[in-house]
Amino acid sequence: MSRIAYVNGRFQSHREASIHIEDRGYQFADGVYEVTAVQDGRLVDEALHLARLDRSLAELRIAAPMSRRALAFVLREVIRRNRVRDGIVYLQATRGVAPRDHPFPADARTSLVITARRARAANPKALAEGIKVITIPDIRWGRCDIKSIALLPNILGKQQAREAGAYEAWQVDGTGLVTEGTSTNAWIVTKAGELITRQASNAILNGCTRLALLDIARQIGLSFVERPFSVSEAKAAPEAFLTSTTSLVLSIVRIDDTAIGDGKPGPFGRKLRELYVAHAEGQTAKRSAMPEVA
Amino acid sequence: MSRIAYVNGRFQSHREASIHIEDRGYQFADGVYEVTAVQDGRLVDEALHLARLDRSLAELRIAAPMSRRALAFVLREVIRRNRVRDGIVYLQATRGVAPRDHPFPADARTSLVITARRARAANPKALAEGIKVITIPDIRWGRCDIKSIALLPNILGKQQAREAGAYEAWQVDGTGLVTEGTSTNAWIVTKAGELITRQASNAILNGCTRLALLDIARQIGLSFVERPFSVSEAKAAPEAFLTSTTSLVLSIVRIDDTAIGDGKPGPFGRKLRELYVAHAEGQTAKRSAMPEVA
Repeated sequence: MSRIAYVNGRFQSHREASIHIEDRGYQFADGVYEVTAVQDGRLVDEALHLARLDRSLAELRIAAPMSRRALAFVLREVIRRNRVRDGIVYLQATRGVAPRDHPFPADARTSLVITARRARAANPKALAEGIKVITIPDIRWGRCDIKSIALLPNILGKQQAREAGAYEAWQVDGTGLVTEGTSTNAWIVTKAGELITRQASNAILNGCTRLALLDIARQIGLSFVERPFSVSEAKAAPEAFLTSTTSLVLSIVRIDDTAIGDGKPGPFGRKLRELYVAHAEGQTAKRSAMPEVA
Repeated sequence: MSRIAYVNGRFQSHREASIHIEDRGYQFADGVYEVTAVQDGRLVDEALHLARLDRSLAELRIAAPMSRRALAFVLREVIRRNRVRDGIVYLQATRGVAPRDHPFPADARTSLVITARRARAANPKALAEGIKVITIPDIRWGRCDIKSIALLPNILGKQQAREAGAYEAWQVDGTGLVTEGTSTNAWIVTKAGELITRQASNAILNGCTRLALLDIARQIGLSFVERPFSVSEAKAAPEAFLTSTTSLVLSIVRIDDTAIGDGKPGPFGRKLRELYVAHAEGQTAKRSAMPEVA
């Protein structure tokens, strides 16, 4: 089966799906995106992703491409046409096509591209043994809270991680505090058993998995604090992990050359992953796959 | 005549010219660009632009799309097919098309898009009366020396300028020093008649017009210093101006709400613009429009 992409109102063969060379997403990184997990054919944490999309668009003053209800329908249609049961759906919205000029164009129409694909299964080795992160300076812009497609520093950081044999790079601000990974949020557990993750601000992308996990911690009465932590605090912590839509919760067993805890995935990381998976399953089990659209 | 674009080896109608939705330029801002002026059908400061392109590509480890000689030929062919005598040629090179994943793909081929268009004539009012700039915090990433397409902060700054009735926004670093405009370099003249512009570093894009103008200053024995200057130093300066490929040299008569000098374009700005125009004319007059390509 050839894959199908949604591009500005049309379902097209993925191979031939294209956008104009003067789409502002291509010339200026003038757009935003969301990646949402699909589990058992249903969207995980959909409300969080659509709320964040609205926020990103509003911060950049890009008009919503369609109503949230219509968007929910199209997302499902792309998933359905690609027969994705477990995977991801990717959505990108840009300020549209206009002759190249920096200021916002007067009359461009928001471009919308949606694709879906089956997920590679979670790497059993990464799950069983935990993963390594390196630390790098955070050289990103001042509005990392916007989920923009201006991801050049992120891909450079991720590439640096891969070349160092690591899964992810934790970015470190000018004062030695960890902001987040290049596509994941960063967490540690203190010796007192408290969860720590940096508070939402312009310095990080407020992850949907991050928000869902904080909610789970709240529900089960797990103590957590939203505050920054330093690289040295992280290296001395008994546990560390990362979260994202595609990685869910993944234990970190090495930061640079320092083993974390006993060098194996710890109980908090394992338990929180189980709870997040249960949350995603419970959420998708109780909701219908295809809402009525008038 | 319909406009023509060059896209990955093909000349196409500009209206239909497109790139794949998974071009990394569209999904990650993983690419670079150059805008070169065309005067009398010839490229201005071509060697500077092509050298900078090579540098940007090398910094991001994107393979050159073709040899410099072949590129020089295609640039001229796009100019010729669009019958541009005076205008600009735009070139964009990205890491190419690959399934969306942050690390560099193993086997993507560099995408290359080139367009050309006639320039709007210089705004006679801006030339005669000078222009206004506002100052805004510089929120860009740490590698502004790379001419990347990750221009989201730049367009937001330019939009802010336009809404304030200004031509440009000067970006100011955390210590109160001006870095540069959102698409232009920043200059002042001291009371002693010395030219000041920030030295090349990761904090600014080393403009080709900037380099050409420094060379002109050197040739005519004009005193200049490459160093940062503060907003307050600029507001107290007798003259200020900006440079870019499309604005050439443009006098600034107002920074935020402060008039510069007597509020009219000063002699340095006018003279340097004349010298730059003469440089561009002399350069294009003595070179052939179409090099031999083997």
